[in-house]
Amino acid sequence: MTTTALPTAPLPLGEHLRSARLRAATLVQQEALQAARDMLRADGFTELLPPLLGPVTDPGGRGAKALDVDFYGHRYRLMTSAILYKQASLNGFDRLFYIAPNVRVEPVETAATGRHLVEFHQIDVEIAGATRTDAMGVARDLLKAVVTRVWDRLPDVLEGLGRDRRVFDELLAGDFDRCTHAEAVDRLAALGHVQSPDTEIDWVAEECLSRALTRPCFVTDYPLGSRGFYDRRDPDDPRRLRNFDLLAHDGYGELVSGSERESDYATIVTRMRESGENPAKYAWYLDEARRGIPASAGFGMGVERLTRFLTGLDALWQVSAYPKLPGVVTP
Amino acid sequence: MTTTALPTAPLPLGEHLRSARLRAATLVQQEALQAARDMLRADGFTELLPPLLGPVTDPGGRGAKALDVDFYGHRYRLMTSAILYKQASLNGFDRLFYIAPNVRVEPVETAATGRHLVEFHQIDVEIAGATRTDAMGVARDLLKAVVTRVWDRLPDVLEGLGRDRRVFDELLAGDFDRCTHAEAVDRLAALGHVQSPDTEIDWVAEECLSRALTRPCFVTDYPLGSRGFYDRRDPDDPRRLRNFDLLAHDGYGELVSGSERESDYATIVTRMRESGENPAKYAWYLDEARRGIPASAGFGMGVERLTRFLTGLDALWQVSAYPKLPGVVTP
Repeated sequence: MTTTALPTAPLPLGEHLRSARLRAATLVQQEALQAARDMLRADGFTELLPPLLGPVTDPGGRGAKALDVDFYGHRYRLMTSAILYKQASLNGFDRLFYIAPNVRVEPVETAATGRHLVEFHQIDVEIAGATRTDAMGVARDLLKAVVTRVWDRLPDVLEGLGRDRRVFDELLAGDFDRCTHAEAVDRLAALGHVQSPDTEIDWVAEECLSRALTRPCFVTDYPLGSRGFYDRRDPDDPRRLRNFDLLAHDGYGELVSGSERESDYATIVTRMRESGENPAKYAWYLDEARRGIPASAGFGMGVERLTRFLTGLDALWQVSAYPKLPGVVTP
Repeated sequence: MTTTALPTAPLPLGEHLRSARLRAATLVQQEALQAARDMLRADGFTELLPPLLGPVTDPGGRGAKALDVDFYGHRYRLMTSAILYKQASLNGFDRLFYIAPNVRVEPVETAATGRHLVEFHQIDVEIAGATRTDAMGVARDLLKAVVTRVWDRLPDVLEGLGRDRRVFDELLAGDFDRCTHAEAVDRLAALGHVQSPDTEIDWVAEECLSRALTRPCFVTDYPLGSRGFYDRRDPDDPRRLRNFDLLAHDGYGELVSGSERESDYATIVTRMRESGENPAKYAWYLDEARRGIPASAGFGMGVERLTRFLTGLDALWQVSAYPKLPGVVTP
């Protein structure tokens, strides 16, 4: 491998670990994860420990790449997300979740966004027999449970970080905002931001949308081709996916991505081909799909993004004990 | 990379995931981890999310190798354990723990031991200012808390797996057994097993010792050279380390490895050189040590080994949802 000069870290690791800010963020994150576990277990979910490596991983990383490793002479990859494993596990666990570490090699230019880390974690939820509406309901309830708990248990810590409880009043009081991807394109036009109706909403547009919100907003029905093959194509509008993101208000952007899933073998193979994936790479997953994977819906909620939103901090590296920024060589 | 013929998995993944056995083991593991979190948090510990990648990792893997990845042109490694990060974090968090995923490329011949997985998890604990005795006390209390909880909450699940509560009577009733490495060598001789007094106790000997126990046993004072450079050399007997393993009884073998740690910069460099490690590779860790890492003691408790002990199952792959056996190509 070649060695290239890369920018240095925001803080030396020791200084970062000793900071009052990281200590506060860690306490909030610890409480948030406990609240998530309590809420999900009370709702009938089982927690599994996720895989780290596999012959194939989630290809839907939107510009991010997976890391390869040599597993006894075979090329394996670090999980960018464990979506394929979540689906394959539904026959044994019809409501399941992971607190899953993921690794995505993001473009170097995302190092300064405050919203990208190479190593991050997701609260990764999957529900057999569920619709998109069901999954959105669980995501909403999960976020409410977490916000309620951290303000109940750690008000001094949050206020010490400068967070104002009133920012969360609308979130806790009622339902979340909701719009389709097409409506989000219109909202963005009204905010002076041009967004193609045919592509993913990029992070600049997402922040712009998020700043205009006063409560979290589900964005649904992304255009076909903008996400991974596992997001279910809408049977009523085949140009759309039956999926969703959940954007936080106040400029914090995407917290959650989710969808109904494709579960029919032939449809999965077609969707793989349409998205440029080689089905032969996915042999084990397609074997499971051929034997029968339940229909499902689910989502992943970013743990560091959630913690940043709760704490009101500027950047993800401030809430991660061991932050790895894209292209930045740090311990 | 070359492709070699390798043995097939014990069960196809779908069949494994659908099995009543995995379901039972997962419920026990979920409850065990919750008990561990509750006990450690009540004892003043903070949970951090551990790193997955770093420029260097724990070299003390006893025959296991780390996996390399290309991190923006730099060679990074997957954590075999996060011991270096635990120590570096003590300035900010004086009692900390991870539930840490680790990857160790074990020799192919360990695939059939029932006790080795390439991907596994540890309850990884570190305590600033603590002695070995303190760390052993926490490990003992942690194991007792977990056993108490799973039998309290899941007696039917455990009995359904054929586990007998009486196996844990001595564990719960009193203190644990204890011997030095030298005494373990004598015990092994009495059991007809030749064990060198100068080396690590191998897994065959460990199982032999474990079968002769009726309660867990701490084995202390391993010979210098048998463990990583971070296990503190005993100031009173420089041929020994101030460390410990905790062996389960009933044949289940090692559950925990721990020690007092070296924290003095010059001593760490000396110990690295003595164990054949190049200090230049550990630049960030040595920078932290030069600035001052607190004296500490800590340990790692294997989550899958703990679950196997609790459930009485034969092999670690039976308790892991996504088992990776050494040399076995599976999803």
